[in-house]
Amino acid sequence: MTDGSATAFVPGHVTAFFSPELDDDPTKAGARGAGITLSDGVTVRVAPGQGLELDGEPVSVEAVDTVRSALRIEARIEATTKLPLGAGFGVSGALALGTAIAANRAFDLRLSANELVTIAHGAEVRAGTGLGDVVAQAQGGIPIRLEPGAPPHGLLDGVSDRGRVEYITFGELSTEAILDDGTDHLAAAGRRALSWVVDEPTLPTLLRAGRGFARETDLLTDRVYQAIEAVSEAGGEASMAMLGETVVALETGLSEAGFEPSSCAIHQPGAIIEE
Amino acid sequence: MTDGSATAFVPGHVTAFFSPELDDDPTKAGARGAGITLSDGVTVRVAPGQGLELDGEPVSVEAVDTVRSALRIEARIEATTKLPLGAGFGVSGALALGTAIAANRAFDLRLSANELVTIAHGAEVRAGTGLGDVVAQAQGGIPIRLEPGAPPHGLLDGVSDRGRVEYITFGELSTEAILDDGTDHLAAAGRRALSWVVDEPTLPTLLRAGRGFARETDLLTDRVYQAIEAVSEAGGEASMAMLGETVVALETGLSEAGFEPSSCAIHQPGAIIEE
Repeated sequence: MTDGSATAFVPGHVTAFFSPELDDDPTKAGARGAGITLSDGVTVRVAPGQGLELDGEPVSVEAVDTVRSALRIEARIEATTKLPLGAGFGVSGALALGTAIAANRAFDLRLSANELVTIAHGAEVRAGTGLGDVVAQAQGGIPIRLEPGAPPHGLLDGVSDRGRVEYITFGELSTEAILDDGTDHLAAAGRRALSWVVDEPTLPTLLRAGRGFARETDLLTDRVYQAIEAVSEAGGEASMAMLGETVVALETGLSEAGFEPSSCAIHQPGAIIEE
Repeated sequence: MTDGSATAFVPGHVTAFFSPELDDDPTKAGARGAGITLSDGVTVRVAPGQGLELDGEPVSVEAVDTVRSALRIEARIEATTKLPLGAGFGVSGALALGTAIAANRAFDLRLSANELVTIAHGAEVRAGTGLGDVVAQAQGGIPIRLEPGAPPHGLLDGVSDRGRVEYITFGELSTEAILDDGTDHLAAAGRRALSWVVDEPTLPTLLRAGRGFARETDLLTDRVYQAIEAVSEAGGEASMAMLGETVVALETGLSEAGFEPSSCAIHQPGAIIEE
């Protein structure tokens, strides 16, 4: 052990579409799908101690507790983010992954990058709060999840592009509740969307495949539907973030449609250690 | 096609040790091993046209020509770098990968991230100028190559750490000539070094495993040997870059031993598209 602290930054991640793949082994379970990682993310500081604070408020996040106990550390975690919780930005996955990466450095745990991703992914899957955010956030960019699960089970590709996005959140959706409703229709629609993006790995196709997935799976709320339509009418590309009442658009798509969104870059590096 | 241009940045990569794995399929061939990617790298601008210039001078790089013909583009490539060619920094791999990534954007080729890495890796392996730089440079950080080859054959892990390194180059070594000498002794020593780093994935262990590999394979030149010894005597960690007459040290290891090295950060993002 050590008396040091360490800080990690993990990008936000909006999933455009997904195909849940269940497995008793949480490192093999996960989701195929694709999404966009965001330069708006979560900064996670880990030091010896107790507790978890998000933006100065004590919170309880099951995936983070699981990571702490898997690593056998007594750690105090202080996280900050601009992103809303429970709205489809992968904040819980970012907390789990950021905790693992920063704890590895703060406590000199000597785990490899893949081991840290595997621990955080397994914790998130067990908690039921996410299926594919952690592996996407570890990679960065515009991840395409070809095979579900943590390394070495999961297989990632990516859209090779950069740019800016806008996002707006109207409310929360519970990943757990939606997955509890059954996953067969999600899996079928997710596989169709994935084959489209594999065939043409571009950002506009990713958003179009996401819109198709949202329609087919009946996950669109009225407010999300209307915002996506408004962006399309203004000539832009938008889709729903899975799973939250959130719309993400390329470039200035939402502001050109009259909304007042947040704006950030597509985050190319993926999760990184900061000083 | 388009009249646009695009620019990619690819980090330098110093290999600490490697185990060549030959295969008739260049996407399966490559090397197990580990190394460090550097914030000193190669910026590659691609536009319609002809020619390849490195720092304003016309050069010929077989891997770049192979990438251009695989992509069926008529491209002018202008690259700049602080790194020396032929000295173990993966400059030819960076040129191949940077060309593929920037050309994908400039010519709207709609290839995925993995496809671009595969094309660049195959071109580099065919040219005989490198075996593992491209996949390492695509990932960034401190890549551990567990299985050789391009996606989806290759399997990467990484040391989860950050920091600065120093490097100094005394001269060039020919990767082609050393590989032509036979690879059995390299493969055996490379596998031993890899098992050490897999067991303890830390930066100091990576450098120690690299020193062991360099000794066992008789690749150390006198100047490299003396520099590594001088860094060790000053309390630092250094190793030889495979394959160049180059020494890389953690933090300020070389300057504390009395050398006047270049200095840069470990590059966490891996190859990225710039504006």
